[in-house]
Amino acid sequence: MAERLVISIDAMGGDNAPESVIAGVKLAHEKYPDVFFLLYGDEAQIEALAKQNDLDKQAYRVYHTTQTIKADEKPSAAVRYGRESSMWKAIYAVRTGEASAVVSAGNTGALMAMSKICLGTMAGVDRPAIAAIMPTSKQGQDVVALDLGANAECNATNLVEFAIMGSVFYRIVYGEENPSIGLLNIGSEETKGREEIREAAHILRENKDKVNYQGFVEGFDIGAGTTHVVVSDGFSGNVALKAIEGTAKMVKKLFANYSKKSFLAYIGMLFFLPTLLRLKKRVDPRRYNGAMFLGLNGISVKSHGGADEVGYFYAVETAINLAQNDLCEKIRAGLEDVIFSPDDTFKY
Amino acid sequence: MAERLVISIDAMGGDNAPESVIAGVKLAHEKYPDVFFLLYGDEAQIEALAKQNDLDKQAYRVYHTTQTIKADEKPSAAVRYGRESSMWKAIYAVRTGEASAVVSAGNTGALMAMSKICLGTMAGVDRPAIAAIMPTSKQGQDVVALDLGANAECNATNLVEFAIMGSVFYRIVYGEENPSIGLLNIGSEETKGREEIREAAHILRENKDKVNYQGFVEGFDIGAGTTHVVVSDGFSGNVALKAIEGTAKMVKKLFANYSKKSFLAYIGMLFFLPTLLRLKKRVDPRRYNGAMFLGLNGISVKSHGGADEVGYFYAVETAINLAQNDLCEKIRAGLEDVIFSPDDTFKY
Repeated sequence: MAERLVISIDAMGGDNAPESVIAGVKLAHEKYPDVFFLLYGDEAQIEALAKQNDLDKQAYRVYHTTQTIKADEKPSAAVRYGRESSMWKAIYAVRTGEASAVVSAGNTGALMAMSKICLGTMAGVDRPAIAAIMPTSKQGQDVVALDLGANAECNATNLVEFAIMGSVFYRIVYGEENPSIGLLNIGSEETKGREEIREAAHILRENKDKVNYQGFVEGFDIGAGTTHVVVSDGFSGNVALKAIEGTAKMVKKLFANYSKKSFLAYIGMLFFLPTLLRLKKRVDPRRYNGAMFLGLNGISVKSHGGADEVGYFYAVETAINLAQNDLCEKIRAGLEDVIFSPDDTFKY
Repeated sequence: MAERLVISIDAMGGDNAPESVIAGVKLAHEKYPDVFFLLYGDEAQIEALAKQNDLDKQAYRVYHTTQTIKADEKPSAAVRYGRESSMWKAIYAVRTGEASAVVSAGNTGALMAMSKICLGTMAGVDRPAIAAIMPTSKQGQDVVALDLGANAECNATNLVEFAIMGSVFYRIVYGEENPSIGLLNIGSEETKGREEIREAAHILRENKDKVNYQGFVEGFDIGAGTTHVVVSDGFSGNVALKAIEGTAKMVKKLFANYSKKSFLAYIGMLFFLPTLLRLKKRVDPRRYNGAMFLGLNGISVKSHGGADEVGYFYAVETAINLAQNDLCEKIRAGLEDVIFSPDDTFKY
């Protein structure tokens, strides 16, 4: 029998934990019956939920933990005092090789800090970044955006590293040979924006045989799919990500409100339903749940804190896909190729 | 006869200038027949377009200019070498009192720099900001966001000033007595984000009897209408604004694409049309065209560079409303009240 893929789960992290976590694991087990789950958290609660969800006893093992990292815990404090937590223990399973990837819906900053310390940073990477996949209006084309919140402030070198990691990541996930890269700015002219962005642009242009840098992009280019990868500091990236999510929700809510007010619209809605459902599926934020920490020696996936079981399922699916595709090894090789190639070094 | 309100127009600024500018002025004239327009730009072109649009000769005067500020011109160069431009001359008319407000769809940075130099900054304001109004999913409630691109980097004092100006502006436009203010950040916890934001939050909390500060907000709170005013540095604000616009466009495009593929959806669309049109009107970006420079001694309104005539009309309407409501005087009084009140000074 082939070895089973093992995913470790921080069962206590997230607004709806452990309920939606265990329900999400159940959905993942249905689709991936060969995957084995290590569940870290309160044993009594987890076992009760596993029973309630009718989760196959052969698909998981529970590790009882007594500590939970709070949503407002400072990352530095979490790292120092959180070693008995479900989050730390779940990450540690990746460090020891017991699991191939970890998933948590808990405190993002703590998960980042703990993953960094526990798993270590890849050679060639100064600062790991949070990357996520988002839908675009281009048919069948998604966009990878990073950093989405790991580093509130970044220098030019950080941005260049994000560009390389994002490019390699896009290639692995979508098989796109030479993904195009845009730097998020507030104008497309070369004189615009902050100094570090202009400097990063300069470095990327100097290395155009190694990375497919396209130039500055703006907020609207993310959803338009202008480039395959959009690179920014963690502050702007996080603001953009949440503004995009918020707008999608706003449109949905306004649409529902306006529809409710009209009988004609109600009739129309019935005809429209299949189309709306298809559209909803395409942009469903739950489908795009599961942000990755890129640049670490191990796969650590962050689920949205407010994810329901379907959202959590997608985060677990992301972890499974990345583990099956050996993400870390490929990013390492990609960075090696771009930055350290002995006869053709990357020019900083 | 009452004195006519005069608006000066940079007829050469914008991607579709002067065509959409003059067509927009024509729409404005139809709604506001008492307003008089000073049109700065190429006389022959403007007169031809005025004739083509059948614009009443009593409603405008053309001032011939020979220079146009390019979209990629550096603001510093525009200020130094652009004194013969349609943009500078149009702003200058506000300085001399000939016009009550200026509208331009040209280079944002140049318009900001020129407006600042030509009109001067209000007492109590270190850095003027670009503010805009956006729709939210709350019924009948819009949000004012600033800064949207004037200042790529900001310190705590700048952010506090933006909060006060945004609050006064919201009060003037919507009559809301004590508008709520949120600081854009990447998390709602006090430990999150950049140093200058945490410091600004501290100052605003110290002055809670003077400004209705609610705390940190995130990207999704803009569209949710969590607070009346959202304050950020110009870089994040610009990214958020454009991400929001881009997402709205993406949803619209996907919606149209999916609808086209289904006959049922086509039938449904017919019933649905009135609702869609109402929704479209509510979120139509053209209706929300017209960003304001707050903190200057004069009203300067920036239209979207790509605005069509309807979009341009709304920018002109914004300028007319602000001039009629004496925006500058009220912001000055508001700042005076909040910052300089002799017996109860603002605590920096």
